[in-house]
Amino acid sequence: MPRMSTAATTLPDLAARMRALATEARAAARALATASTAQKNEALARAAELLTSQRAELEAANAQDLSAAKASGLSGPKLDRLRLDGGVLQRLAEGLRQVIDLPDPVGAEISRSTRPNGLNLRQVRCPIGTILIVFESRPNVTVEAGSLCLKSGNATILRGGREAQHSNTALAGILRAGLRAAGLPEAGVCVPDTTDRAAVGELLKLEGLIDLAIPRGGESLIRAVAEQARIPVIKHYQGICHVYVDRAADPELARKLVVNSKLQRVSVCNAAETLLIHAEAAPSLLPAIAKDLVAGGCELRGAPQALAILKAAGIPCSAADEATFRTEWLDKVLSVKVVESLDAAVEHIERFGSRHTETIVTRDESAARAFQSRVDSASVFWNASTRLADGFEFGLGAEIGISTDKIHARGPMGLDSLTTYKWLGDGAGQIRT
Amino acid sequence: MPRMSTAATTLPDLAARMRALATEARAAARALATASTAQKNEALARAAELLTSQRAELEAANAQDLSAAKASGLSGPKLDRLRLDGGVLQRLAEGLRQVIDLPDPVGAEISRSTRPNGLNLRQVRCPIGTILIVFESRPNVTVEAGSLCLKSGNATILRGGREAQHSNTALAGILRAGLRAAGLPEAGVCVPDTTDRAAVGELLKLEGLIDLAIPRGGESLIRAVAEQARIPVIKHYQGICHVYVDRAADPELARKLVVNSKLQRVSVCNAAETLLIHAEAAPSLLPAIAKDLVAGGCELRGAPQALAILKAAGIPCSAADEATFRTEWLDKVLSVKVVESLDAAVEHIERFGSRHTETIVTRDESAARAFQSRVDSASVFWNASTRLADGFEFGLGAEIGISTDKIHARGPMGLDSLTTYKWLGDGAGQIRT
Repeated sequence: MPRMSTAATTLPDLAARMRALATEARAAARALATASTAQKNEALARAAELLTSQRAELEAANAQDLSAAKASGLSGPKLDRLRLDGGVLQRLAEGLRQVIDLPDPVGAEISRSTRPNGLNLRQVRCPIGTILIVFESRPNVTVEAGSLCLKSGNATILRGGREAQHSNTALAGILRAGLRAAGLPEAGVCVPDTTDRAAVGELLKLEGLIDLAIPRGGESLIRAVAEQARIPVIKHYQGICHVYVDRAADPELARKLVVNSKLQRVSVCNAAETLLIHAEAAPSLLPAIAKDLVAGGCELRGAPQALAILKAAGIPCSAADEATFRTEWLDKVLSVKVVESLDAAVEHIERFGSRHTETIVTRDESAARAFQSRVDSASVFWNASTRLADGFEFGLGAEIGISTDKIHARGPMGLDSLTTYKWLGDGAGQIRT
Repeated sequence: MPRMSTAATTLPDLAARMRALATEARAAARALATASTAQKNEALARAAELLTSQRAELEAANAQDLSAAKASGLSGPKLDRLRLDGGVLQRLAEGLRQVIDLPDPVGAEISRSTRPNGLNLRQVRCPIGTILIVFESRPNVTVEAGSLCLKSGNATILRGGREAQHSNTALAGILRAGLRAAGLPEAGVCVPDTTDRAAVGELLKLEGLIDLAIPRGGESLIRAVAEQARIPVIKHYQGICHVYVDRAADPELARKLVVNSKLQRVSVCNAAETLLIHAEAAPSLLPAIAKDLVAGGCELRGAPQALAILKAAGIPCSAADEATFRTEWLDKVLSVKVVESLDAAVEHIERFGSRHTETIVTRDESAARAFQSRVDSASVFWNASTRLADGFEFGLGAEIGISTDKIHARGPMGLDSLTTYKWLGDGAGQIRT
């Protein structure tokens, strides 16, 4: 079991320890890459059992984090997110069983061809190698991300928040015990033995040992990871998602979709932050939509034209300022703007959006196709809620995160996104001539 | 036509100019992303015509580079690589016509499903956006890389060697004229108006404006790009490719494949640099293979056991030192080592290889499958020459480069590798519940 660092460590020492950790993870990754589906599932099943049978030990580790967090003044929802109780552990075990049921992506053929010279060529999925997950707060991520990486044959280094270090180490210990029970190297799941911030910086430099970093959390965490990294990073900074209500929108559909996109769950990246509405639809439709939103407890921030329409209708709305349309509210607040055309909506999204998820509400198929073609976002919907941009909703079975990058994976990332491929060529002496 | 910088430029000025260039390219990328296949092909066809009709102007621009290069002492093959004559221009025009014939990857469906709630979901290929190509010497790359990016709907910023700046600018001008003739923005193909090295560093910082960098050239260039980049980079540093002759190798096949892998063209990344041969096969087979290699003008550098076998057979071979097996010879030199087992071959490749291309020569299918499964390289062949790891040989129609990275694209990269995807969802009012 990794030990907690007690004394202050010097940087060269820290660098050497992180390199040693990553070297161990890399060796484990080689074994995991050729592990059978049955072996990987056995590890996951064993870990699921241990989440129940080791509940007392896990709660004891968690209690250390909880008391330190309380002592440092943490309370309310933040403290709750840190807590591992029987219910949380049961849900984590259930999650592991769902990962067991997912198809193993490793070995799947992406393409196959026989070349004119007779070479049989296959493009086959294989694990990426070692993946560094950097995250905040909720210790659940240790089990969720660790199990998805394990199932896809990758080793993982899990670096959570310092306030959850005991909990994360204990949960990783469960996955490590599962690996051991299945005859696989326990270094397939690693937690650094320090909460020193500089450790992340050292890990992010280890090109050749760590293949990919996936930061999960607030924008400042993600930016810090991206700036320090010498290895590839897949990420999304923000979800500034837009609902564009076209002039040909069905009014009832527009009301339903705006409310669901904004209010179904406000703290998540695929919640809508901005409503754009066509000038022809706004006078009649905007007040109706706004009433629904206000009834749901939502505040509105309107650009001048929207503000005027809402004021005239007696609906509370404050004036948008320069920062409004660049703000990811993650709360019951919505930015509202009237636009003159679909073009103007696309331009607004290009300028202020985060390329995450946008939706158009319209009965006009050609408007929908133009919007989907021209908007440069990971998910572009027609007559559907932005909240549907999600790995489970997309049928990926699970989600390791959502990417607003364009390289490797875009949008919700499932198990396939945790793989690369290799080209396997079977010949009979083919040469280059 | 971009101007050459004459006076020294200050860094803030340079940064502002590079940002302006990338902003222009990004706007062009948006237009290219929705351009029709016919429009893109028209631009390419027009450029192909201009390569012939503007031959005098192109040769005049090239003459400026050639005379400066001669004055600075360049000669022989290096000078030849810089030269644009009628033959080179004709081949470039032919290449453009081949790109016209390639299928347009944009709009191709990667997956399609109907979700349980009725949402019709499609994962559709789209361009990446703006791609920065950093390369050395041969001005041909301007046309080859520029045309592949154009066909795949991306804008390109092409930054070649300073000794080819006039030629590169003139060739980019041909592509720009093609874009203009097809009603597309000429900023779809850009060459910075400076050869200042710091310009590349500025471009590599422009996250949000440039989506991907592809460096092509020697290892030092590629490392410099990777170290400075704040944007994703796809690259390969080296091609240290291995041929492993198994104990169950067919002797004639082994001779043919080693010679072809090493000597068919020595200066390229998929040429073999190391021969590993099983200890049971080595006494009889190594001398025969070595004779063929020496007859082809190849020098050998042997680890002790290989050295002893070759000395006993009277075949010239010098002793390998520590650096030997880490060396990408790119020349008529081959590192040779006897290994005790397939395991030892895999371990050697893991330790010394560059994860580019390896091949096993064997009649034993289970050995071949173990090798293909365990070797962590972009291309892993069985009884085929390493020289076949190539976009054309793989049927990709063209090659923008070869990636030894694991993220986004691995191995030979064709047009598909220049695309990302978006998720398009068509609904009828689906919400998250």
